[in-house]
Amino acid sequence: MRWFIPTSLILALAAPALAGDAAPDPITNAEAIALVQEHANFLWTLIAACLVFFMQAGFSLVEAGFTRAKNAINIIMKNLMDFSIGSLAFWAIGFGLMFGHSLGGFVGTSGFFLSDFTGEGEEWTLAFWMFQVVFAATAATIVSGAMAERTKFTGYICYSIALTAFIYPVFGSWAWGSLHNGDGWLENLGFIDFAGSTVVHSVGGWAALAGAIVLGPRLGKYAANGSIRPILGHNIPLAGLGVFILWLGWFGFNAGSTTTADKSIALIFVNTNLAAAAGAVSAMIAAWIRFGKPEVSMSLNGVLAGLVGITAGCANVGPAAAIIIGAVSGGIVVSSVLFFEKIRIDDPVGAISVHGVCGAWGTLAAGLFNTGGTSLAIIGVQLLGILACFLWVFPTAWLMFKLVNHFIGLRVSAEEEMEGLDFSEHGGNAYPDFRASGAGMSFDGGSSSGEKKPATASTAALAHSRMG
Amino acid sequence: MRWFIPTSLILALAAPALAGDAAPDPITNAEAIALVQEHANFLWTLIAACLVFFMQAGFSLVEAGFTRAKNAINIIMKNLMDFSIGSLAFWAIGFGLMFGHSLGGFVGTSGFFLSDFTGEGEEWTLAFWMFQVVFAATAATIVSGAMAERTKFTGYICYSIALTAFIYPVFGSWAWGSLHNGDGWLENLGFIDFAGSTVVHSVGGWAALAGAIVLGPRLGKYAANGSIRPILGHNIPLAGLGVFILWLGWFGFNAGSTTTADKSIALIFVNTNLAAAAGAVSAMIAAWIRFGKPEVSMSLNGVLAGLVGITAGCANVGPAAAIIIGAVSGGIVVSSVLFFEKIRIDDPVGAISVHGVCGAWGTLAAGLFNTGGTSLAIIGVQLLGILACFLWVFPTAWLMFKLVNHFIGLRVSAEEEMEGLDFSEHGGNAYPDFRASGAGMSFDGGSSSGEKKPATASTAALAHSRMG
Amino acid sequence: MRWFIPTSLILALAAPALAGDAAPDPITNAEAIALVQEHANFLWTLIAACLVFFMQAGFSLVEAGFTRAKNAINIIMKNLMDFSIGSLAFWAIGFGLMFGHSLGGFVGTSGFFLSDFTGEGEEWTLAFWMFQVVFAATAATIVSGAMAERTKFTGYICYSIALTAFIYPVFGSWAWGSLHNGDGWLENLGFIDFAGSTVVHSVGGWAALAGAIVLGPRLGKYAANGSIRPILGHNIPLAGLGVFILWLGWFGFNAGSTTTADKSIALIFVNTNLAAAAGAVSAMIAAWIRFGKPEVSMSLNGVLAGLVGITAGCANVGPAAAIIIGAVSGGIVVSSVLFFEKIRIDDPVGAISVHGVCGAWGTLAAGLFNTGGTSLAIIGVQLLGILACFLWVFPTAWLMFKLVNHFIGLRVSAEEEMEGLDFSEHGGNAYPDFRASGAGMSFDGGSSSGEKKPATASTAALAHSRMG
Repeated sequence: MRWFIPTSLILALAAPALAGDAAPDPITNAEAIALVQEHANFLWTLIAACLVFFMQAGFSLVEAGFTRAKNAINIIMKNLMDFSIGSLAFWAIGFGLMFGHSLGGFVGTSGFFLSDFTGEGEEWTLAFWMFQVVFAATAATIVSGAMAERTKFTGYICYSIALTAFIYPVFGSWAWGSLHNGDGWLENLGFIDFAGSTVVHSVGGWAALAGAIVLGPRLGKYAANGSIRPILGHNIPLAGLGVFILWLGWFGFNAGSTTTADKSIALIFVNTNLAAAAGAVSAMIAAWIRFGKPEVSMSLNGVLAGLVGITAGCANVGPAAAIIIGAVSGGIVVSSVLFFEKIRIDDPVGAISVHGVCGAWGTLAAGLFNTGGTSLAIIGVQLLGILACFLWVFPTAWLMFKLVNHFIGLRVSAEEEMEGLDFSEHGGNAYPDFRASGAGMSFDGGSSSGEKKPATASTAALAHSRMG
Repeated sequence: MRWFIPTSLILALAAPALAGDAAPDPITNAEAIALVQEHANFLWTLIAACLVFFMQAGFSLVEAGFTRAKNAINIIMKNLMDFSIGSLAFWAIGFGLMFGHSLGGFVGTSGFFLSDFTGEGEEWTLAFWMFQVVFAATAATIVSGAMAERTKFTGYICYSIALTAFIYPVFGSWAWGSLHNGDGWLENLGFIDFAGSTVVHSVGGWAALAGAIVLGPRLGKYAANGSIRPILGHNIPLAGLGVFILWLGWFGFNAGSTTTADKSIALIFVNTNLAAAAGAVSAMIAAWIRFGKPEVSMSLNGVLAGLVGITAGCANVGPAAAIIIGAVSGGIVVSSVLFFEKIRIDDPVGAISVHGVCGAWGTLAAGLFNTGGTSLAIIGVQLLGILACFLWVFPTAWLMFKLVNHFIGLRVSAEEEMEGLDFSEHGGNAYPDFRASGAGMSFDGGSSSGEKKPATASTAALAHSRMG
Repeated sequence: MRWFIPTSLILALAAPALAGDAAPDPITNAEAIALVQEHANFLWTLIAACLVFFMQAGFSLVEAGFTRAKNAINIIMKNLMDFSIGSLAFWAIGFGLMFGHSLGGFVGTSGFFLSDFTGEGEEWTLAFWMFQVVFAATAATIVSGAMAERTKFTGYICYSIALTAFIYPVFGSWAWGSLHNGDGWLENLGFIDFAGSTVVHSVGGWAALAGAIVLGPRLGKYAANGSIRPILGHNIPLAGLGVFILWLGWFGFNAGSTTTADKSIALIFVNTNLAAAAGAVSAMIAAWIRFGKPEVSMSLNGVLAGLVGITAGCANVGPAAAIIIGAVSGGIVVSSVLFFEKIRIDDPVGAISVHGVCGAWGTLAAGLFNTGGTSLAIIGVQLLGILACFLWVFPTAWLMFKLVNHFIGLRVSAEEEMEGLDFSEHGGNAYPDFRASGAGMSFDGGSSSGEKKPATASTAALAHSRMG
């Protein structure tokens, strides 16, 4: 704990002529001004990192709320671990691959284990790492949603590491690598993706697509006769809270990508907010037209669609364009969710549509609505970036999931899936004091069907430990 | 994504003499210092906007937690949409009416569709808009609580637009219009309402009063024999979380109203915190005395009462006065809630008392405890502002609700109300995996009473879409 | 509400020569630069206070989620009141004891009721108070968790005041008192505890230990034959959300303890994040080894253990050391939770282990991994501080609990405990719309067992008031 003393600052910082021998090298007023601005940049970048970090909670709640009660613990564990293990993986490997000295614009080769950080004078690398680690974890979390309710926990951990340490950073180095000391080929072409519609969201979305395909749909999603069956989310207020948290966090995601405390963040805030609002309204209307009622999960996904859509262009389009981008995103997400459901790719939370499809749209839109004017060349580069992302992520992720499936196993058994992952994977029950209705809960503490209670030695020990 | 480079800043910002031809116009050190301070102001105003934005989540949770499970989706949808549609309405119309060039101090006439924003040099308008839009949405959200569990969703959307685009901004222009380029008549008289006890909270509260009167009480609230029946909130932990979120957000609400990063925000933080604490304690004691036990919903509302109370005077009273203001608010809210219940105005969350009544008290208190001294003239202007607010908002809102009722319909049918708005308005169920007790839930996925399940074609399609 | 006008700032702040007579005393550029930096310090300290404040919500959710549904209202009320009453107690007494002019390094003697605050020029005292009050409340909240599900509400209020107003500030004055105008004996020896592994967390943890011993275990925790019975938490998603909120808040807790907006906060952010991540992973692995499955409550507590562990050394260890500190914390917490359970100290949320034990470890580790080098002398002082904390807090808290027990009563009756504190202490039900399973809920609004419903006159009045 420190106590800030204004007088000492005047001496040390702003009036070097007055400083005694013990003081650091005297600095000029001009240098002092730059230093104060630098402090403001640190502040904003790290506060924005807090906001983006909090998005992890938002993703957890959306995913848990939109799925069944019997898998809620599993979802909390997955989201907790993709950020925790992801932080360690990004520290060890990912940051170096993404922002290290670039090998021909295709991958970074230095800075592993934060080894660029040599103490004094390198604080900015730490601040930038902090902002980047919360981005990297977002990509992994997106995938979690599309593969919810049927993925083996050990398999999840493996692919989560691969994504954060390898798949995401490699693409990232193409588009953003020059920020530190790389030199990405895609950014050299003028690719516009300010905060990551493609770099973060499409990467997550296309990995989610590969995962959902390799896994196959949840049991019961498609009836024997081919009809599609609804699987309802178990806690809509939590999902709603999650969306509000994500909206909040996105202000940090987009405006924090300036990593600078200057006036440009104002436009980014306004664009982010208007696109989210327009996405919510247009998705609600689209759902209303299709289903006859303003359905809640589509409306909530409309917010996320709008946010993903504006992420690429948040700094280079005007407010009216942001509304258009968001509104189109909201319409796209409804159609896309229904499309993927129809072609039997089961994505419990709509992650592929929200992040993959709307990420691609947003990246295109950043070229179309560019305030500096647009051109076929700009559009071409945007399309190239979108395509490069898909061609890098989808096959790599597909291969990774196949490998995990082969060596570790990607999907739980049918019995475990029906019982719920909370019980089978974690030996727990998210809501033991509530009576279950139907098959949404793993077991019911007070029901007469005692055989579903955790009764084996290991699960008793587990339940036992719950007091922690 | 950007990478901040300190050296470039020194060149560009603080040492103009060193800057090359490519640099922007050189600036003096004095101008550079002002610019860095400006950046800090942008930062604080936009971070505060984040905090106030998050209050939307807090209001959702308080409203959902204090009402029945069968209406939880409806409440999430209302809160989502009043912010989303409200953002668009405030962009198109509200901001111009509130902060545009004023017509005689009564209403703004320019700046619609953010048309004042002409790019470079106008960033502050964007930052200020962002801070104001989250305020405007708060007023609409307040009304939502008082009209919960019986309002038609289409009717809700209509009055939500009217509030955000018209009723709130017009009064706002009287008290704060001069901030941009207006010249409000009330502020010209010296009216003190720093962060909006009257401008935001009483406006919301009196509109809520009009709405609750036009709607009438919920079915079952008042028995045939005239006795008052309790309708319990279905999720107190969520309501508690909501109150903590609101307390958090209020630091941004009050201290952010400086729109300046200076030392004055410290007093505002301390006052805000002490008033909230005192409100909680005094409401708990008041409820303890009346009911014999420290009741939770009154204690939670005590926090909100204290916060509303200190909002007007947060910058011009001392910490001890803040405690008194908060404690009185906490006492007032308990009596007021019981009063409105007794006169058969059914306000499920106590919004009229918290925002309307305590907003009025707080505005008066800002005059009474003014650190610069008080006088009959100051008190007179405060009372005039309180009265002007009621006389503008209550009749206008009453008329608006009557019009909505006539043309669109304001209240759902008795059958829909009993079934719950989640099912009838949105074709959903907030908690399908949990077994219901009594009439608090719309339907029970696992119960034998199949006729309450969503079985029609449209609702099947709806449930269907829930995977989104 | 204010509208920031850049031009006026240039005149008033940065170009004193231009300022007219009405302006404040002209200042030099050097003073102006220091002033802008000061503003940034205020901003950071108060934003960090917001983050730490939000930890109250996190603690509420963790405690509520890890305990039974029938005590959820009680937990919300306790957390609300320890912050509310604690704010008033710290304003009146605690801040003065901790930061007032020190009596021989052992206790402060001035500054009660914020009397040091004399308006202009003393704003920093207010900002610092705001940051300290949220710390003080944390200590009280920690105790709440260990004593959950059986403590009398009036008893809770009494010990909560004693902790915030006396036990915590006295120890705090030993370690941090000099920040304002004290002169603590422990800090004079060179004790390292940057953000309070000992000052806040161990104080809370050892008070929790005393409380859990005086109270005794919950009914049913230990069977008649001596076996240990699990008591499951009722809402794991809420507990998970709580942990994410705490992780978020801890960035403010640790990095905010600089009370300065400078580059040093970057390292603190990175250390905090890596230690939390490592704690989660290592606790998950430890639990996996012991129980055969990756158990959720241990994993969540691993995050908190890692965070408590890094709190002391967050500013003076490197990132790799932070990972080691966090990983060891995660291992410790699993063993410690099982140890306390075995010796029949019933701590429903693991607070003693997380805050007491890991706080001690973290304080030792801050000496061991000190980037400036370590020595027997440094280790000795760290151990002395750890010991002094235990010797001050445990006996004092034990005595306090004994006194409360004697004069007011510390534990509810067996009947009240079985019924749940929500009903017996607050006349409420946290989840009236859901059907209970087993004994986890106090009563079931829709069940046929009418005798458990709130049917007495006072509870009817209570239920009645719930609409507020």
